[in-house]
Amino acid sequence: MNNVVAASPRAPQLGVCYYPEQWPESQWAGDAQRMRAMGLSVVRIGEFAWTRMEPAAGTFDWGWLDRAIATLAQAGLKIVLGTPTAAPPHWLLQACPDIAPVDAQGRRKPFGSRRHYDFSSPEFHAASARIVRAMAQRYGQHPALIAWQTDNEYGCHDTILSYSDAALRGFRGWLQRRYGSVDGLNEAWGNAFWSMQIGSFDEVGFPIGLPANANPIHALDFRRFASDEVLRYNRMQADILRELSPGRDVLHNFMGFFGGFELHQMGHDLDVAAWDSYPLGSTDIASFLSEAERVRWARSGHPDIPAFHHDLYRGLCRGRWWVMEQQAGPVNWAPWNAEPLPGMVRAWTWEAIAHGAELVSYFRWRQLPYAQEQMHSGLNASDDSLDIGGREAAQVALEMQSLRGVLSMPTSRARVALVIDYGSGWMTEIQPHGADMDYFAGAFRWYSALRQLGLDIDLVAASAPLADYGLVVVPGLIHLSDPLMASLRAAQRRPGRAPVWVFGPRSGSKTEHFRIPAGLAPGALAEFLPLQVRRVESLRPGRRVSIHADGQVIGHALRWREFVEADAALAIDARFDDGHPALLSHGAIRYVCADVDGDLLRGWLELAAQAAGLRTRRLPDALRLRRRGNLQFAFNYGSEVLNLPFVPESDCVLGSPELPPAGVAAWVAS
Amino acid sequence: MNNVVAASPRAPQLGVCYYPEQWPESQWAGDAQRMRAMGLSVVRIGEFAWTRMEPAAGTFDWGWLDRAIATLAQAGLKIVLGTPTAAPPHWLLQACPDIAPVDAQGRRKPFGSRRHYDFSSPEFHAASARIVRAMAQRYGQHPALIAWQTDNEYGCHDTILSYSDAALRGFRGWLQRRYGSVDGLNEAWGNAFWSMQIGSFDEVGFPIGLPANANPIHALDFRRFASDEVLRYNRMQADILRELSPGRDVLHNFMGFFGGFELHQMGHDLDVAAWDSYPLGSTDIASFLSEAERVRWARSGHPDIPAFHHDLYRGLCRGRWWVMEQQAGPVNWAPWNAEPLPGMVRAWTWEAIAHGAELVSYFRWRQLPYAQEQMHSGLNASDDSLDIGGREAAQVALEMQSLRGVLSMPTSRARVALVIDYGSGWMTEIQPHGADMDYFAGAFRWYSALRQLGLDIDLVAASAPLADYGLVVVPGLIHLSDPLMASLRAAQRRPGRAPVWVFGPRSGSKTEHFRIPAGLAPGALAEFLPLQVRRVESLRPGRRVSIHADGQVIGHALRWREFVEADAALAIDARFDDGHPALLSHGAIRYVCADVDGDLLRGWLELAAQAAGLRTRRLPDALRLRRRGNLQFAFNYGSEVLNLPFVPESDCVLGSPELPPAGVAAWVAS
Amino acid sequence: MNNVVAASPRAPQLGVCYYPEQWPESQWAGDAQRMRAMGLSVVRIGEFAWTRMEPAAGTFDWGWLDRAIATLAQAGLKIVLGTPTAAPPHWLLQACPDIAPVDAQGRRKPFGSRRHYDFSSPEFHAASARIVRAMAQRYGQHPALIAWQTDNEYGCHDTILSYSDAALRGFRGWLQRRYGSVDGLNEAWGNAFWSMQIGSFDEVGFPIGLPANANPIHALDFRRFASDEVLRYNRMQADILRELSPGRDVLHNFMGFFGGFELHQMGHDLDVAAWDSYPLGSTDIASFLSEAERVRWARSGHPDIPAFHHDLYRGLCRGRWWVMEQQAGPVNWAPWNAEPLPGMVRAWTWEAIAHGAELVSYFRWRQLPYAQEQMHSGLNASDDSLDIGGREAAQVALEMQSLRGVLSMPTSRARVALVIDYGSGWMTEIQPHGADMDYFAGAFRWYSALRQLGLDIDLVAASAPLADYGLVVVPGLIHLSDPLMASLRAAQRRPGRAPVWVFGPRSGSKTEHFRIPAGLAPGALAEFLPLQVRRVESLRPGRRVSIHADGQVIGHALRWREFVEADAALAIDARFDDGHPALLSHGAIRYVCADVDGDLLRGWLELAAQAAGLRTRRLPDALRLRRRGNLQFAFNYGSEVLNLPFVPESDCVLGSPELPPAGVAAWVAS
Repeated sequence: MNNVVAASPRAPQLGVCYYPEQWPESQWAGDAQRMRAMGLSVVRIGEFAWTRMEPAAGTFDWGWLDRAIATLAQAGLKIVLGTPTAAPPHWLLQACPDIAPVDAQGRRKPFGSRRHYDFSSPEFHAASARIVRAMAQRYGQHPALIAWQTDNEYGCHDTILSYSDAALRGFRGWLQRRYGSVDGLNEAWGNAFWSMQIGSFDEVGFPIGLPANANPIHALDFRRFASDEVLRYNRMQADILRELSPGRDVLHNFMGFFGGFELHQMGHDLDVAAWDSYPLGSTDIASFLSEAERVRWARSGHPDIPAFHHDLYRGLCRGRWWVMEQQAGPVNWAPWNAEPLPGMVRAWTWEAIAHGAELVSYFRWRQLPYAQEQMHSGLNASDDSLDIGGREAAQVALEMQSLRGVLSMPTSRARVALVIDYGSGWMTEIQPHGADMDYFAGAFRWYSALRQLGLDIDLVAASAPLADYGLVVVPGLIHLSDPLMASLRAAQRRPGRAPVWVFGPRSGSKTEHFRIPAGLAPGALAEFLPLQVRRVESLRPGRRVSIHADGQVIGHALRWREFVEADAALAIDARFDDGHPALLSHGAIRYVCADVDGDLLRGWLELAAQAAGLRTRRLPDALRLRRRGNLQFAFNYGSEVLNLPFVPESDCVLGSPELPPAGVAAWVAS
Repeated sequence: MNNVVAASPRAPQLGVCYYPEQWPESQWAGDAQRMRAMGLSVVRIGEFAWTRMEPAAGTFDWGWLDRAIATLAQAGLKIVLGTPTAAPPHWLLQACPDIAPVDAQGRRKPFGSRRHYDFSSPEFHAASARIVRAMAQRYGQHPALIAWQTDNEYGCHDTILSYSDAALRGFRGWLQRRYGSVDGLNEAWGNAFWSMQIGSFDEVGFPIGLPANANPIHALDFRRFASDEVLRYNRMQADILRELSPGRDVLHNFMGFFGGFELHQMGHDLDVAAWDSYPLGSTDIASFLSEAERVRWARSGHPDIPAFHHDLYRGLCRGRWWVMEQQAGPVNWAPWNAEPLPGMVRAWTWEAIAHGAELVSYFRWRQLPYAQEQMHSGLNASDDSLDIGGREAAQVALEMQSLRGVLSMPTSRARVALVIDYGSGWMTEIQPHGADMDYFAGAFRWYSALRQLGLDIDLVAASAPLADYGLVVVPGLIHLSDPLMASLRAAQRRPGRAPVWVFGPRSGSKTEHFRIPAGLAPGALAEFLPLQVRRVESLRPGRRVSIHADGQVIGHALRWREFVEADAALAIDARFDDGHPALLSHGAIRYVCADVDGDLLRGWLELAAQAAGLRTRRLPDALRLRRRGNLQFAFNYGSEVLNLPFVPESDCVLGSPELPPAGVAAWVAS
Repeated sequence: MNNVVAASPRAPQLGVCYYPEQWPESQWAGDAQRMRAMGLSVVRIGEFAWTRMEPAAGTFDWGWLDRAIATLAQAGLKIVLGTPTAAPPHWLLQACPDIAPVDAQGRRKPFGSRRHYDFSSPEFHAASARIVRAMAQRYGQHPALIAWQTDNEYGCHDTILSYSDAALRGFRGWLQRRYGSVDGLNEAWGNAFWSMQIGSFDEVGFPIGLPANANPIHALDFRRFASDEVLRYNRMQADILRELSPGRDVLHNFMGFFGGFELHQMGHDLDVAAWDSYPLGSTDIASFLSEAERVRWARSGHPDIPAFHHDLYRGLCRGRWWVMEQQAGPVNWAPWNAEPLPGMVRAWTWEAIAHGAELVSYFRWRQLPYAQEQMHSGLNASDDSLDIGGREAAQVALEMQSLRGVLSMPTSRARVALVIDYGSGWMTEIQPHGADMDYFAGAFRWYSALRQLGLDIDLVAASAPLADYGLVVVPGLIHLSDPLMASLRAAQRRPGRAPVWVFGPRSGSKTEHFRIPAGLAPGALAEFLPLQVRRVESLRPGRRVSIHADGQVIGHALRWREFVEADAALAIDARFDDGHPALLSHGAIRYVCADVDGDLLRGWLELAAQAAGLRTRRLPDALRLRRRGNLQFAFNYGSEVLNLPFVPESDCVLGSPELPPAGVAAWVAS
C-alpha cells in the first residue's frame, strides 16, 4: 500500500480518526499495527485535545502527543493533525467568559460539550493563535505529518451565529466598511419603510426578537457578516500553519447539507476540502424527504446524499477533496439510528473513490464506551473487537490494492454543472415565501433527477468557469452574480460550443441588496431570456397545478409557481392549466416557471441533456452510476438484487452485472 | 365620481394606500393622476412616516408632506391621514428604552420593524401626543382631509400584552381601582385556593411563567387591563384629533379574527370602524379550517371570512365602516401565499360594497421592491406596470359609476343578529377545557351556517339593542352581561313580536369574576331557559357522539358536549345516544348542548330562522348572497360556473344568473 | 363502617379530600354529616392552607383549623393532615425571593399558583420545618388523626429540577462527596472526551443550554442529585412528624407515570405510599398510546393505567398503599377532559380495592366554583348537589359493607414480579437513542401484556427479594444493580425452585457511570446469559423487522432491535429475517433482542408464564381480572356487555358473569 502512495500521491488512500488521549498509552502501538494491517495509511488525531496539550494558559504538555505521533509514524502511518479549537478548555472560558457564544435568547452557552466559542471574540482569536502556533512549531516539520485540519466542523450544533456584544460591535464595523455612511445604509436597506432610518451605525441591532420580521437585508447582512467572521477565523489558523509547516496540506472538515457560511470562499484558503459523510444520519434528519423515503433508505442512506456532497466538495479546492469522517456503523445523533446494510460501509467507500476522493477516513477507530458519543460506532467495538465496519474497510483496502493501476488515473471533469450558491440559500431561508421552500432541498432534487439519468455532475460556484460544460443547471439562484452573467455573455459569443443552460424558478429575483430588480425577475437574466415574472405564488401542500403539453398532462407544479409574460421570441414548451407558460426555452437557455414533480423534472432535464449531446439512462431507483478515470462504477442502494444488462461482465474488475444489495461493480469503460 | 361623492357622502368609494415617503417626489403627480383615472377618490397616507415627519425629538420636517398632500389634493383626491405611531423612530427608543415592549420571556423587543412600543409607557404617550398634535395642528383643517386613522392595526404581531415594569405598575393600579381593597381582590379571585392570598396590591405579578396555570381571573383581569390600556391610548389620540381637526372622521383599521381588546368599546371613541381585509392570508392561517378547506379556498379565500368581518365591523360605529386595506394580489405574510383567482379582487370589492362599506381602499398603490413587505403585491407592480389588482379595481370603479343610483340607498339592518363578545373570547382562551375550543372559530362556524342559508346577518355586541331582530343567535357567550339579560327580559314582555333566540353551549357558564354561577350554567339564563348544565366534557378529535331525533341519527357532537337536566317545561328536540338532551327549546328560546357538526348546525339554525319567519335558501358551498338597499348580490367563490335559477336575469344590473368563477351578479330585489 | 375499621385496621375504607378553608364555616358540620352518611370514614385536609395557618412569618392562626378538625372528628371521621408546603405563602417569597425555583431558561418562576419552591433552598427548608413542627405540635396527638401527608405531589408541574444558585452549590457539593477529587470526577465522567476536564468542582455547571448535548453522566448525576434533594426535604418533614406525632402514618401522595426521583428510596422514609389516580386524564396525556387507543378509552381510562400504579405503589412501603385522590368525574387538566362512563367511578374504586388498597379517597368533596381547578369535578357539584361520583361512592360503600368479611383478608403476593428502576428511566430519557424510546411506556407495555393474560403482578424495585416469584420480568433495566445480580446468583443455586426470568432489550447495557460495560451489553448479566450485544439500531416509525420461528412470521420488531452474538449454549427460539437471534433462552432465563409488537410480546410472555407453572387466560381487550385474598374480581372497561363463561355465577358476591359496561364482578375463588 505504501508503494501506491509513493507512486501517485493522488491515488486514493484509506484512513481513520483516532484519539490517543482517550486510550491507555499501552494500547497505542497495537492500535497502530492493526491500522496498518487493515490497509489504512492515514490517521487523524488531535482535534479535541486542547486541554491535554495546554492544561493551563500558556503551559504546554507535549510529551504524550510526541509519543503518540512517534508510535503512529513508526507503524508507517501518515498523520493529519487537527487544531483543537473546537473544544476550548474550561480554564480559558473561566478566564474570559466572553468567549462563550450567546444564543438567540441572549443566554451565554455554557461549557460542557464543544463549540462553546464566539467567532468574534478577540480573546478567542488570541488563544487560538497561541495553541495553533505552538502545535505548528512543534510538529510542523514532522516527516510523517501530511496535513492540518483547522478546528472541526465549523457551524456544527448551530454555532455560526452568536448574539454577543463582540458580534454586535463586529457587525456594526462590518456595515460601516460596507456602506461607508449611515445614509448609504439607510438607502441600501430601504429604511424609509416603517420609519426604520437610523442615525448612526451604533444603532443597528441584531435582526432577531423584533415584534415583526426584520428587514430581509438586515438579516442577510448579518449572515454575510457572520460568514466573514468564520472565514477570518479560519484564515488566521491557515496563515499560521502555512508559515510554520510548509508543504503540508491545510484542510477543514465540512458537514452535509450545511451552508452557514460561504464555503466556496473558504475553499480559497484551503488546499483540500474534506467532509464528514454520515449517510444514515443525514437521511434520518432530511426533513425534505417524505417519511416513506426516510424509511426506504434507512439502512443504505438516500442514494444521492453522499454523492451530492462528494460532487459539491470536489468543487471547493480545485478538485482536491477527502472524506475526513466516513460513517462506519450506526451513529448516535439522529432521532433514529439505523444499522447500515451489510456491505454498505464498503459501498460508501467505493462511491467516494468513484467520485475522486483522495482519502476516505473512517470515524472512528474504536467506539468510546463513555461520554457524549458512546453510542457512535467505529471500526472496532468498544471492547476492541473488530466490528463490521472494520471488516468492510479491510475488504476495500484489499480491493484497492488489486485495482491500484486503474485507480491512479485522474478524475475527469463532468459534462454537467449544477450551480450552488450559499448566498441564494440565505435569501431563501430569510424569505421563503412558501413555508416549505428550502434551498438545499431544491438543489438536491435537481441533482437527484440528473443522477437518476446516469449523469456525472460537478457542483460548482456561480463564479466557476462554465464554458466547457455541456449542460449547466441553475436551480434557485435568487441572486445572479456578475461572474455568472459574464459566463452567460461569453457563451453567447460562441453559440455552437456553448452549454445548454437550465434555470429554475426564482432565478435572478433579487439584487445584491435583497431587492426586486428594477425590471422584475429574472433581472439581468432577461438579457438572454426575454421574459418577465409578473407574479409568484407559493402552493400549500395539497395544491397541485397541472402542466400540459400537446394536450396531455405531463406533470404538476408543487410548492411554487410563477406567472410569466414571455417575449414572442421564446418557445413555450408546456403550459399550466390556465394557459400561462410553464416550460420555456430560448436558444440554448431553458426556464421552468415552477417547482415541478420529480418525474416531470427528470423528463425535462433529460431533454436538456440530450440537447446538449449527453447520453442519458433512466436508472432503477436504487441504482446509481459514477465514472472515475476510465473506470465506470455501479452501486446498488436497495435491498433487492439488480441485474444490469448494460454492464459488460467481461470488463468487470469489481463485482458483476448481478448487483446484490449494497453491491458495487466496476468495469473499464471506453 | 366626485359628483357621486358630493351627492351622497355615504355612497361607496374606492381608495388606495400610498406612501409618498417611499417614492421619488417626481413620481407623485403621475401617481395621483393615475389614481384618479383608475376611479379612486380617496388616498391614505402617513401612517408609518414618523421619522420623516420628526427626524429628531421636537424637530419637524413638514415640507415633503405638505407637498405630497398638495399634489394628491390637486388631483382631486380626498386624504386620510394616519398618525405614524405604529413605527416609533429610533431616536425615541434610544432616548427612552423603556418604550419598547417586553415579551413573555422578559426580553425587550428591539427596534427594526414596527409596533415596538408599550401601551403603558408614559413616555410613549407623551411622544405620541406630541406628534399627533403637531400633525393635527398642521393638517387638521386641510380641505382635502376627510379622516384620521389612529396608529395602525393595534395588536398586530401580538403586541397587546407587554410584561414591562410600566405594565405591572398599571395593572396593580387598575386592580386597586377595580377591587378597592386587597381583601376585595382576595375574595373576588378566590385566593383561598392554593394559599394565594396576598397582602398588598404590590404583590400581584403577571399571570405567566408560573409553575402551574395562573388563576383564571388573574389572567382575565390582566387581559381586561391590557384592553383598557389600548383604549386609553387610542382615546388620547382621538381627543387631540377631535380638538384640532373638527368635522373629520376618526377611525382605526382593525384586523381579521382579532379580539385582543374590547373592539366594541373602542367603537365608541371612533366615527368609523375600518378593517384590513386579506382573504387569502386569513384563509391560509385559519387553523380552525381543515387542510382540505384551506386548499379548497386557497385562491378565493373562504367565502365567509370577508363577510364575517364586514358584518362585525359594521356593528362597531353605528353602521359606518370602511375597508381600509383590501388585498389586491398575493400577500407576503402567510405560510403560503397564493395568487387570487382572476376576478377575485373585483369580487371582494363588490362583497364589501354589498355589505355596506362606505369605502374600499386597496393596499397598496405599488409593490415596494425592498424591505419587509417587498413580496406584498399592490395595484401596480414594483416596476410601475399595472397589475391584475389594478385592472380589476378600475373595472369596479366603472361598474360603480354605472350603478351609482342604486348604490346610494342605505344598507338596512339585517333580520338576524349574531352576538360577539370579546370578554367571552378571553375566557375561552384562558380556559378552553378542550384543546380545540376557540371562540372565534365557534362564532365563525355559526355565522357560516347562517350565511349558507342565504341570510344576511348583523354581528353585534351583547349590549346592542336586539328587540327588532327576527333571530338572535348567541354562540359561546360564556358570560351573560346585564344588557343582554335586559334584552331577554324585555323580549319576554312582548312575546308576539320578540325574536327567536338561539344559544350555544357554555352560555352563561361563568360570572363576571370567572366563576361557575351559584346555580351552575347557564346562570341567569335559567330564568328563561329552565335547565341546569350538570356536567360538561370536551371531546378529543376522533370522538363523535351521535344525536338522535325521531329514531334517526341527525348528526354528531364534536369537541364539546354537556349533560343537561331540563325542566319538564322544556321541549327536547333531539337527544344524545345516551338519552341526554341535545337540542332543547322553550318558547322562543333554543339551546344546543354541544358543538355539533356543520350539517346539523345548519339544519337546526334553519328551523330557528323559519320559526322567526325568515326565508332561507340552502346555497351551494361556493355561492353566497348579500343584499344592500334593494340590490341583491350573488358571489361565486368557487372555480366552477354556477347557474342560479332563482336569479331574475332581466333584473340583473351586474352579471347574470350564469355566475363564472369569481363572478358577481346583482339584481334589483323586491 | 366504623366497626369494620376497628375490627381490621387494614380493611379497605373510603375517604375524601376536603378544604374547609374554602367554604363557609357554617357548611362544615353538614358536610361532615353527609360524608359519614355516604359511607366515607376518612377525610384529608390542610395541604394547601399555609397562609391560613401562618398568615405572617411565625404568626399562627389555628382557630379555624381547630374547629374544622373538631367538627369532622365529631362526625366520626378519621383525619389525614397534609403539610401545606406545596403552596408557600406570598409573604415567604417576598422575604426570601431565592425560594422560587429557576426554570431552564434561567427565570425565577413567580408566585401565583403552587410548587413555587426550590428543594435546595435553605430558607425554604427552615420555613417548612417551622410550619410542619407547629402543625405537629398542635395536632400530633389528636385522637382523630390517623396520618400525615407530606407536601403534595412532589414534582407536579415539572418541579424537581431547578437551575438556581442554591441548586448549583448543592450539586457541586454532592459531586464532591460522590467523587472525592476532581480527578476522580474527570475519570468517572470520561472528561478526556472533547477536552472537558475541569480543575475544580466549582467549574461544574448545569447540563443544559450547551451547544451540544451534555455528557450523559453529567445529566444523570444532576438527576441523581435532584432526587436526593427531594428525599432530603421529605425526610426532614417525616422526622419532625415522627418525633411529634408518634403512632400516625406518614405518607406522600405520588402521581402516575412519574419517575422524577427515586420513589422506592422515599418509600423507606414513609409508612404508606399513596397515589393520586386520574385514569381519564392519564389516558388523555399518554403520548405512548395511539390516537385510536386514546379515543377508545377516553371515558373508562386505559384498563391497565390504574392497575399499573396500584401494583407499583404497593411495592414502595412494604405493601401498604392508599389511593389518596381518586378521580370522581371529569378533570380539568388534560387537553381533553371526558366524562367517565356511568359506573366507572365505582369500577375504579373496586379495582383499587381488588389490588389491596387500604383506602380509596375521592378528590374532592365538592367542586370549587373558582380558581384554577374550578372545572375539576367532585363528589358534589359546586351547587352542593350530589353528583354522579358521589352516588357511585355511596354505592361502593354499601357494597363494601356487605362484603366486609371477605374484604378483610390480606392481599397475597403475586406470582409475577415486574422490575421497575427509576435510574434506568433517567438513563433512557437522557440517551433514548431512538426518539420514541420511553422507559415507562416500555414497562407499561410489558405490564399490559401480562395483565391481558389474566395474571396478577407485583411491580418491585430491582433490590426487592425476588426468589419467591414464579416469573420475574425485567424490561429495560439499563443498569443492573448489585442486588438484582445477587438475586440472580442466589436463584442459580436452587435451580428447581428458581423463578423464570425474562429480560428486555438494553438490559445491562450501561454501568453505574453511564458507560458501556467492558464486555459490552448485557454486562454482568452475561454471567447467566452468555451472549453479547454487538450492535443496536433504533427503528424509525414505519420500520418493522419481521421475526420468524418454524418458518413462520410470528411478529415484528418495532422501535429497537439488537444484533446479538449468542453462545452455543443458548437456545434461539426465533430469529429476525436476517438470521440474527430475536428470542433467546438459557435455562430459566429468557431474552428478547427487540421491542416487539404487542401480540408477539404477549405470546412470548405467555410461554414464559407457562414455563413458570402459571395459569394464563387470554382476555378480551376490555376485560381485566385481579384477585384480593380469596376474592376474584373482573372488570369491564369497555362499552359493550361481556359474557364471562369462566365465572361461576353461583359464587358471585358482586355482579354476575354478564358484565355490563363499567361492570364489576367478584366471586370467591379457590
